[in-house]
Amino acid sequence: MNSKRCGSQSVIFPTNPKILSTATIVGDVEGQGPIGKHFDLVLEDDTWGEDSWEKAERKMFEHSVRLACNKCNIAPESLDCMLGGDILNQLISANFAARAIKAPFLGLYGACSTMVEAMLIGAMLIDGEYASTVSATACSHFSTAERQYRSPLELGGQRPPTAQRTVTGAGTAILVSDEYQHNNESTHELFNNIVISAGTIGKVIDLGVKDANNLGAAMAPAAADTIQVHLNDFNKTVDDFDLIVTGDLGSLGSELLNELCKEKNIDLKDKHIDCGNTIFSKDQNVDCGGSGCGCCAVTFCGYLIKRLEAGDINNILFVATGVLLSPDTTLQGDTIPSIAHAVVIERRVS
Amino acid sequence: MNSKRCGSQSVIFPTNPKILSTATIVGDVEGQGPIGKHFDLVLEDDTWGEDSWEKAERKMFEHSVRLACNKCNIAPESLDCMLGGDILNQLISANFAARAIKAPFLGLYGACSTMVEAMLIGAMLIDGEYASTVSATACSHFSTAERQYRSPLELGGQRPPTAQRTVTGAGTAILVSDEYQHNNESTHELFNNIVISAGTIGKVIDLGVKDANNLGAAMAPAAADTIQVHLNDFNKTVDDFDLIVTGDLGSLGSELLNELCKEKNIDLKDKHIDCGNTIFSKDQNVDCGGSGCGCCAVTFCGYLIKRLEAGDINNILFVATGVLLSPDTTLQGDTIPSIAHAVVIERRVS
Repeated sequence: MNSKRCGSQSVIFPTNPKILSTATIVGDVEGQGPIGKHFDLVLEDDTWGEDSWEKAERKMFEHSVRLACNKCNIAPESLDCMLGGDILNQLISANFAARAIKAPFLGLYGACSTMVEAMLIGAMLIDGEYASTVSATACSHFSTAERQYRSPLELGGQRPPTAQRTVTGAGTAILVSDEYQHNNESTHELFNNIVISAGTIGKVIDLGVKDANNLGAAMAPAAADTIQVHLNDFNKTVDDFDLIVTGDLGSLGSELLNELCKEKNIDLKDKHIDCGNTIFSKDQNVDCGGSGCGCCAVTFCGYLIKRLEAGDINNILFVATGVLLSPDTTLQGDTIPSIAHAVVIERRVS
Repeated sequence: MNSKRCGSQSVIFPTNPKILSTATIVGDVEGQGPIGKHFDLVLEDDTWGEDSWEKAERKMFEHSVRLACNKCNIAPESLDCMLGGDILNQLISANFAARAIKAPFLGLYGACSTMVEAMLIGAMLIDGEYASTVSATACSHFSTAERQYRSPLELGGQRPPTAQRTVTGAGTAILVSDEYQHNNESTHELFNNIVISAGTIGKVIDLGVKDANNLGAAMAPAAADTIQVHLNDFNKTVDDFDLIVTGDLGSLGSELLNELCKEKNIDLKDKHIDCGNTIFSKDQNVDCGGSGCGCCAVTFCGYLIKRLEAGDINNILFVATGVLLSPDTTLQGDTIPSIAHAVVIERRVS
């Protein structure tokens, strides 16, 4: 009935919106991690010369958009639409970055699923012919997140072993239509025919986890649900993908994901990697791994897309998960709902 | 180049996504106002039997979606996508409502512009054939907003005369494709051929207002900018619309909008109304009028759409404005950026 709807929650993008370029800006701990050399800019000082971490975070958001635009020779202010968000209250990093860039802007909030939500809506805008060029960005910052969600760093609180470390990082992907690229010869193509071909819009799932220090466990059910729905909607199996990438489940959450998938008769085999486990090494003292909406944004935009470009892998199911709690809901005794959105990103051999 | 892009920031929806039904739930003060009789449900107790205002707010969000779905005979869980948001931290009203309804969900944050952002993206999903049925919802609550943004009501703080009163209200519009309605004879059509035909994606604008108690003034420049861009993009004038409706500028913000438009050589004449001035009467002691993302959601979904249906007016340019501040940015000395998105809603006489 809908030519671009597939199954219960999924959509296809027949015109294959292209990822023309990406850019990443990260903090020093991320720069020292296993994929540190893949990031465009590693900040030595996580205030980046600003007088607050919040101002540094918005600067990271803004400059990841500018850098990604510069790389492909698109003027940032000429973008048809900026899409994205962050996890600070009232989305201030995204909003203030959009103020600086002066392009049309749609603010999104999907907690740590925001990067994929932005890519999903961005691909609809391009494929639906509502835009020729869009940016999709997500950004988080360890110090601002600790201050807002846990306790200010100055208090020196102890973290339980199930905790994850919020990634200081901003990642942007520039999506364009084939036609735009064809008509604008001045654009540089950083990647050769890497496209977003399909996606799945997540549902909010809640299995009753209440521990705000074990968010990987809260998000694993949403990831398992979206993976199952995606495979069903397209009548595919795990074998159809080179990698199934989750956003920031961390080590405990990843174990739980594998178990939950097994219960659904889905064997992830060796196909699953989690960005929260990829960005940090175990000897970095980050407990259960990375988190925050910047985690999968920079891991994809900095590292995974280069593996796609190199032909090391040909396609991924990119599933970003977000916990939809607030400090208030935790204090009011609520359980922690979560959501996972997915996009299929592949290299098209022409 | 893009068949559905028009001018610098606007889009058209050639298939004319239809607003099949709407629903509204409001608090008692809103129910006593000039358009009170148009709302579906007026709560006598603004906790709605819940043990916190926050839980009441999410219940309002959820039940406005359920009610709008029931009216047109669509099962809420069968919606192809729920879209919307609220102004509480981490979008908890929308997120917890989506958990209860169990439909695919995309969370949006545009502060008080959220209703139009949801209608804009919803219309793209329908017109782009990514969905057949979507809900667009925005919700706010006086008591939760005071607690979060100003000071808890229990403290009895005084409000300056430039302040506005956050509307306690949830409004939902159900958008469907023509084809869906044609193929589903069981749907009820509350409104006869009321469609979203076009829209304009706003830019973040900041003229340097710093007073968080005078948000109408902070938002007026964004409204003026989006109105000007929309008219330019479509080569239209104010005379092409029966009404130009802003979200929640209030009385002071509306005066400023008229002045800013005059500077742009746009005379709004008697075409402009503001939902913040429409929902309350001057003798209700609400200072400069209503605000909050529920303000324009319930004013449109409860009142204005009925005027369109009655043929009293045939089209409106619906411009919702949002201030993109957070309590942190105010404390850190920042000015207040704002954004305005617009959609054209019209009755098509067949």
